[in-house]
Amino acid sequence: MNIKKISLLTVGDEILIGQIVDTNSAWLGEKLSALGIIPQSLISVGDNQDKITETLTLLTEQNDLVIMTGGLGPTKDDITVKSIADFLKTPLIFNEIVYERIKTIFEKLQRPLSPSHKQQCYLPEGVEILHNSMGTAPGMLFKVRQCLLVSLPGVPYEMKAIMEEEVIPKILMPALHETMLQETFVVAGKGETEIEDSLKDTIQQMPDYFSVAYLPGLGQVRLRLTARGNFASEILEKQFAGFSENVSSVLGSSLIGKGDTNLETVIGGFCNSYSLKIGTLESCTGGRVSARLASVAGASAYYTGGIIAYTNEIKNRIVGVPDNILNTYGAESEETVKSMVENGIKVLDVDVAVAISGIAGPTGGSPEKPVGTVWIAVGNSTNVETRLLKFGKKREQNITLATQAALNILRLFLLKYYVTEAEK
Amino acid sequence: MNIKKISLLTVGDEILIGQIVDTNSAWLGEKLSALGIIPQSLISVGDNQDKITETLTLLTEQNDLVIMTGGLGPTKDDITVKSIADFLKTPLIFNEIVYERIKTIFEKLQRPLSPSHKQQCYLPEGVEILHNSMGTAPGMLFKVRQCLLVSLPGVPYEMKAIMEEEVIPKILMPALHETMLQETFVVAGKGETEIEDSLKDTIQQMPDYFSVAYLPGLGQVRLRLTARGNFASEILEKQFAGFSENVSSVLGSSLIGKGDTNLETVIGGFCNSYSLKIGTLESCTGGRVSARLASVAGASAYYTGGIIAYTNEIKNRIVGVPDNILNTYGAESEETVKSMVENGIKVLDVDVAVAISGIAGPTGGSPEKPVGTVWIAVGNSTNVETRLLKFGKKREQNITLATQAALNILRLFLLKYYVTEAEK
Repeated sequence: MNIKKISLLTVGDEILIGQIVDTNSAWLGEKLSALGIIPQSLISVGDNQDKITETLTLLTEQNDLVIMTGGLGPTKDDITVKSIADFLKTPLIFNEIVYERIKTIFEKLQRPLSPSHKQQCYLPEGVEILHNSMGTAPGMLFKVRQCLLVSLPGVPYEMKAIMEEEVIPKILMPALHETMLQETFVVAGKGETEIEDSLKDTIQQMPDYFSVAYLPGLGQVRLRLTARGNFASEILEKQFAGFSENVSSVLGSSLIGKGDTNLETVIGGFCNSYSLKIGTLESCTGGRVSARLASVAGASAYYTGGIIAYTNEIKNRIVGVPDNILNTYGAESEETVKSMVENGIKVLDVDVAVAISGIAGPTGGSPEKPVGTVWIAVGNSTNVETRLLKFGKKREQNITLATQAALNILRLFLLKYYVTEAEK
Repeated sequence: MNIKKISLLTVGDEILIGQIVDTNSAWLGEKLSALGIIPQSLISVGDNQDKITETLTLLTEQNDLVIMTGGLGPTKDDITVKSIADFLKTPLIFNEIVYERIKTIFEKLQRPLSPSHKQQCYLPEGVEILHNSMGTAPGMLFKVRQCLLVSLPGVPYEMKAIMEEEVIPKILMPALHETMLQETFVVAGKGETEIEDSLKDTIQQMPDYFSVAYLPGLGQVRLRLTARGNFASEILEKQFAGFSENVSSVLGSSLIGKGDTNLETVIGGFCNSYSLKIGTLESCTGGRVSARLASVAGASAYYTGGIIAYTNEIKNRIVGVPDNILNTYGAESEETVKSMVENGIKVLDVDVAVAISGIAGPTGGSPEKPVGTVWIAVGNSTNVETRLLKFGKKREQNITLATQAALNILRLFLLKYYVTEAEK
C-alpha cells in the first residue's frame, strides 16, 4: 500500500476552547514531515459524535491515512470509540486481549479495576490493536475502503509511544518508497539567522533535491538536512555524507551533536569518557541545570549533586562564598559565581562545577543589573571561566535560557580542557 | 444576525510540519468559549490554494462565521488573498485606503516602501477592512451567502489586536445570546477514574445543560464544569455555584485549586500567608522539585534553597544523614528520607523541608526495591511524615510523578499543620 496523503484529526473540547495547546499535532506533523510527508490538513473537533462521524467520512475519502488522537480514556466524555463504531457501522465487542493487559497492569500496581476500565475494552469489530506500552487505552487500526484509520490516545507520551513503536515502523515505513536521507544537527549558542548566514555558501552548492530546515527552540536550533531521490541510493548517500560533513565543519563547536541528542547527554558522554565528577551551584535557575543533568539515564555515575543556593545565606554558609564578596559585588556578579565554583568544587568534592546567579524577574532588577542579567562560571581546580549574559524580561524564558547557556558553557569547558582531538 | 456555529481555519505549512505550535487557534478558542461559543472545528491547511478553496467551500456552508488566520504577509508564500479572491470569484482591486495607511506607517519609520508592500494592497472586491492597529496587513471581512468570513494575519499580536478591537466588539458581541458558565478544578493525587467514581452522584443530579470534562496529565487531573443556557442568567449562576460547591466538597483536599493554578503556586501562597521558609533535599528527582518551586515569581521570599544529594557521600557529608542509616537501610528507604528532612531543616535553616529518594531507573532496581520505588518525607522540627510510592519503569515518567507527588505531599503537610480553617 502506498501512503501519500495523510490528515490528522484531534478530538476533544479542550483544544477547541483553547484550554490546551495542540502539541500532539505539532509533534505528529514534525514526525511525518521528517518522513517526507507534509500532512494535507489538521482538523480538531469537539467531543461531538456527529461532528466526528462527518469529519471521518470526509477525511477517509480524501486521504490514504488518517491519524486520529484523543478521546480514548476511560471516562464518559471520551466518545471516540463509539463514534468510530457508528461510522464503520460495526458493533462494539469485548476485547479479551486488551482486558487481560489492563488487568495485568492493575494487578502489578495493586489497584482495583473499575467498571469504567472494563468499559474501555469494548472496541469496534474488526479492529487491529496497536500496542500501547505506556498506558491502558489501546491504539486502534481500521481499514476504511482505500484509507487506513489509526486512532491513538490523546495523552502525549502514550500517543508518541504507539507512533514510534507501532505506526511508524509497521505502517508508515513499509509504505514509503522514495529514498530519503536525513540528518538533524543540534546547535547551541547561535541563533537561526546566524546559522543560516554561516551556511549560505554550503547550501548554495547543494543540488535542488537537498533541503535544509530550521527548527528553532529556546537557546537551541535543530537543523535538518534532507536529500530525496528515486535514483541509485549509493550516489545519493555519498553526496549526502559530503554535505553533512561540510555542515558539521561550518558549525564547529556550536554543533552539540547529531540526531536525537541534547546538551546533558553530550556532557554525560564526556564525563564518562574522562571519568569526571561534576556538580552544580545554582541560584536563579533554581535546580533546572541539575534536573537536566540528572534526567540522563546513568547520570549517577558522574553527577555527584549540587546546592541550590537561592539565598545569600546558603551561598555563604553552605557553598562558602565569603561575606565580603557577596556584600561588595552582590549575588549576581562575576566574583560571586567564580567563588561559587571555586568553593563548590571542594564542598561537593567534584572535578568540574558550574555556577549560575542572576535576576530571573519579573522583579529584583535595577538600572545596573536589569532583569535578565545572568552570570555563569564553570571551572575545575586550576581554571575558572566566567560569562555574562543578558536576556529579556520574562521569568520562565530567562530561567530556560540561563539553564541552556550554563549547560552549553559547561560542554565547551569540557571540550577545551578534557576532550581529546580524536573524540572531537 | 445570529452567530451560533464558528469554525477556525489556519493557513501555513509551518503548522502542518510541526515547526510552530498553533497557539493562535488556542487563543481564539479560549476567547470564543469565554463568549459562550465552542468552535465547531479547527482546521489547518498548508500554503496550497486548492486546499484552501476546498476547505473554505466546506466551512462557509456549515458555519455562521469562519475565522481564517495566516497567509496575509508580504512574502511570496502567503496566498490567502489570492485564494479568497478565487473562491469568491472576484477580482483583486487596489485598495487606496490600505495603501495610504501602509505609506503613513513607513513614512513614520523612515523606511522605504517595497513593491511587495504595494502588492499587499490588492484585495478582493467587496471586502470590508478590519483595522490592524499593530501592523500593515489588514484584516478582511466578507459575506459568503449566509456565512461571514473573517481573514486575519498570522502574526499573533496583530491577529489578537484585530480580534479584540474589531471582530469581538463589532461582529460577535452584537450577535450572541446564550449564557455559558465554566470552572476548572485542578486535582492532584487521584486518577481520572477515581475522581469520576467519587463524583458520580453529584453529576447525576446535574441538569442536562451541565457537563463535566476531564483533562488528565501526569499526576494531575483538571476537571471542567460547564453550564450553558439561554434563560435568565441569575438562575443559571445560582445553580452553577451550587454544583461547583458540591464538586469542591467531594474533591476535598485532593483539590489543589480552581482555574489556572498548580501545586507550586498554592504552596507559595501558603508559605507567604504563614511566613514559612521551605527547603528541598533531593536525590532521584535531581532538582526537579526545587526547579518547580523556584519557577513561581517571588519564590525567593519563602524558598531558601536545597541540596541535590545524588550520592550517598553528599547525603552524609552535606545533609548529615548518619552513615549507619545509609548502610543499614540504603539510600532509598524511609529512614534515609526521614533523616534527610530532620537534618536538612537544620542545614538549610528552614521551617519545612521535603526529601525524595528513589530509583528512577532504567537500571538500579532490585527485587526488594524495583525501579519506580520512591520514598518521600515532609516535615518540620516536630513532625515528619513519610510515604512510599511505586511507579513504573520509565525514568522520565518516574521523575515527573515523584516530583508531582512530593509537591502534593508538601502541600498536604502545610494544609494539615499550618493552614487555618478560614483559608481552607
